[in-house]
Amino acid sequence: MINKITIIGVGLIGGSLAKAIKENNLAKVVFGFGRDSERLEKAQKTNVIDQYSTNLKEAVSDSDIVVIATPVGSFKEILTEIKPFLTGKIVITDVGSTKTNIASLVSQTLGEHSNSFIPAHPIAGKEKSGFEASESNLFNNKKVIITPLEGNSSDSISLIQKMWEGAGADVDFMSPESHDELLGMTSHLPHMLAFSLVNYLISKNPSASIYAAGGFKDFSRIASGDAVMWRDICIQNKDQIIDHIKGYQKTLDSLVDAIKNENSDELDLLFTNAKKTRDSWVG
Amino acid sequence: MINKITIIGVGLIGGSLAKAIKENNLAKVVFGFGRDSERLEKAQKTNVIDQYSTNLKEAVSDSDIVVIATPVGSFKEILTEIKPFLTGKIVITDVGSTKTNIASLVSQTLGEHSNSFIPAHPIAGKEKSGFEASESNLFNNKKVIITPLEGNSSDSISLIQKMWEGAGADVDFMSPESHDELLGMTSHLPHMLAFSLVNYLISKNPSASIYAAGGFKDFSRIASGDAVMWRDICIQNKDQIIDHIKGYQKTLDSLVDAIKNENSDELDLLFTNAKKTRDSWVG
Repeated sequence: MINKITIIGVGLIGGSLAKAIKENNLAKVVFGFGRDSERLEKAQKTNVIDQYSTNLKEAVSDSDIVVIATPVGSFKEILTEIKPFLTGKIVITDVGSTKTNIASLVSQTLGEHSNSFIPAHPIAGKEKSGFEASESNLFNNKKVIITPLEGNSSDSISLIQKMWEGAGADVDFMSPESHDELLGMTSHLPHMLAFSLVNYLISKNPSASIYAAGGFKDFSRIASGDAVMWRDICIQNKDQIIDHIKGYQKTLDSLVDAIKNENSDELDLLFTNAKKTRDSWVG
Repeated sequence: MINKITIIGVGLIGGSLAKAIKENNLAKVVFGFGRDSERLEKAQKTNVIDQYSTNLKEAVSDSDIVVIATPVGSFKEILTEIKPFLTGKIVITDVGSTKTNIASLVSQTLGEHSNSFIPAHPIAGKEKSGFEASESNLFNNKKVIITPLEGNSSDSISLIQKMWEGAGADVDFMSPESHDELLGMTSHLPHMLAFSLVNYLISKNPSASIYAAGGFKDFSRIASGDAVMWRDICIQNKDQIIDHIKGYQKTLDSLVDAIKNENSDELDLLFTNAKKTRDSWVG
């Protein structure tokens, strides 16, 4: 059994992982690190974590695994700060939504310990943030993508894989570039569309929302995501997100053409294909 | 108590209204009309409707209210066909998602009976179609918008208002133009965006859907809407839908600029505003 797992940033994802580790007896101690001791104390009292500290040295020392679960924009600072406390035995991982930038950031900041960093991304979440919203089963049957770095040892990779599988997830491996292209499409793009839909509505007629049916409300749910997290993702996965928005706009242009020309056959085909594909995902 | 309400098109909306009328004892008989007698028989056997016929004269005669609950593209044909069986006592209404085109269609087709047509639109639905998916409480606390025509009598309007209120809905009144502008934004636009997102994914990498998190799935749920219904809506509310898609694309362009320039403050503001507004709708 693992002795100590440290979670840097006990929010929705960090808190849910902490709970899953405790519930599945994956480690003797789940240790939380953060800047705000009141929040950490509350997380301990509500059994999200076993112990905590606002002292990074104390948090990292003797850990088997350190999980960075803060917004990706904070990684550079955190990696730089934890470097002095690393040993060859500590495996570091993250839960960030972007992976290409992190690979180069790790080699810039961690030096000799770069090979101990196993980049990972659990594809799970909800529109609420903070450990108060955390759930031990958040990762159940969800995908976790590990994007190994060249120098990672198979033992370190396996340790992180087992942690996630123990938390109920299904682990896949791919390159950081494939990850960012894929998630740019399946996660970042829909979030950008949802934020923009709400912003468009604000600009046109904010009170219109009382006439919105369930579909609109579902659609806009993801526009309640954490603003700082999404700001960071946009900057970290800038090129892919811009490409996907522009590609998507071309799809919208084709739809506008079909509507403008009252092309019934084309509209039928567009909507039928979308419906079939969507139903096949659910079915 | 109303004697007979006839539902033309016993699908999700028609079937749900039929069930709501029966459950709330709003009429002695709920009579279904359709083209397929097997489907109607099944709807009768599962207590969606009391009686049915594939003969329009039989269905319409002696009705107090005739509700047209078929896709809006079929209205011209249906209105033309029922005209011979209308009397001054029959009030006709619909459940269509577009209202401006219907106003002119009614005066073209119904002649002297135009004043008996009360256009209405219940803002409720789900991604499944057919009376098998119908629910008596589908309209509970949902908005129904009535867009009265100039010649409508207050008695006729009141009859349709009471039917919907009896079914649990909250009735509002507005002009057909305001309705189409509003619904173009709160309903038609999100559906166009969802259909297009799925179509974009198909064009890029259909198998990517296994890496889609809950947000994407919620978002794409409305892309399972009925293709024929949405084709008709696009053609009937063409100008408003095109305007809204183009307006939305400008909002996307601003977002692309903010991402391109790595404008953290602007991104923060865009996402925070969207989140605040969205949360206020739910709260």
